[in-house]
Amino acid sequence: MYRNDGFRELDRQECLRLLAKVPVGRVVHTRHALPAVLPVNFALDGDGAVLLRTSADSELVRAVEGAVVAFEADEVDAVARSGWSVVVTGAAAVVTDPAERRRLAVSGPRSWVPWPREVFVRIEPELVTGRELVGGRSMYGLDPLS
Amino acid sequence: MYRNDGFRELDRQECLRLLAKVPVGRVVHTRHALPAVLPVNFALDGDGAVLLRTSADSELVRAVEGAVVAFEADEVDAVARSGWSVVVTGAAAVVTDPAERRRLAVSGPRSWVPWPREVFVRIEPELVTGRELVGGRSMYGLDPLS
Repeated sequence: MYRNDGFRELDRQECLRLLAKVPVGRVVHTRHALPAVLPVNFALDGDGAVLLRTSADSELVRAVEGAVVAFEADEVDAVARSGWSVVVTGAAAVVTDPAERRRLAVSGPRSWVPWPREVFVRIEPELVTGRELVGGRSMYGLDPLS
Repeated sequence: MYRNDGFRELDRQECLRLLAKVPVGRVVHTRHALPAVLPVNFALDGDGAVLLRTSADSELVRAVEGAVVAFEADEVDAVARSGWSVVVTGAAAVVTDPAERRRLAVSGPRSWVPWPREVFVRIEPELVTGRELVGGRSMYGLDPLS
């Protein structure tokens, strides 16, 4: 997709490898019928699911519980004009299974703030897509600004 | 909004000042009824509108033309657990006025790649919202991981 935008598409394995390199991504959902975006720290589960850790009372939980959301992470170097972007799209749900909660308390994402009522949110990796911008110069053999 | 997430809300002027500091943000729109996210370089217009420069043939133009989209930029320091996120929400449209196109060719965003049929896209700043994460330690007087 977006083939006319000068990007190379990444396969699922490349996407998950890149996602594992960064600590922060963005949850994209719908809020009052408008697109909404929220940066969050996260961890990847073994199957590529995105794991968040937040307060049960947060707007984030109310906004995404049971919804299909997109989770995006990227690294873009504006000077080199290169980088990548990966999007995981899938249903989001609060983890309720006690054994799973215990596992995530150890191996899941760390909290940045001490939540009074902490929960884990899991975003299923139903669709994993990514794009790489190789850089104007190396991709086209010329500097687009020259 | 998101008051339970440990963030401070930013006013419109703070948001625009922060947006002007970064070269890259993300356009959030709907694609095949699913949320979609695309990193892009951009410039801010004098009134706070977000300006993009891309190919008339790009998927981006087809996806956002005439739609209400969100444009998000952020800077998050995962070590310091601090940062900010700003979202501009409004209608997106390709700039068609010839005088406006000439103005943007000089003062608008630069191209990263040489588009064969270049257009400017303007996202109206109908809603400008932002949040600042002050950092777990300074905000709560303790390290949440201790």
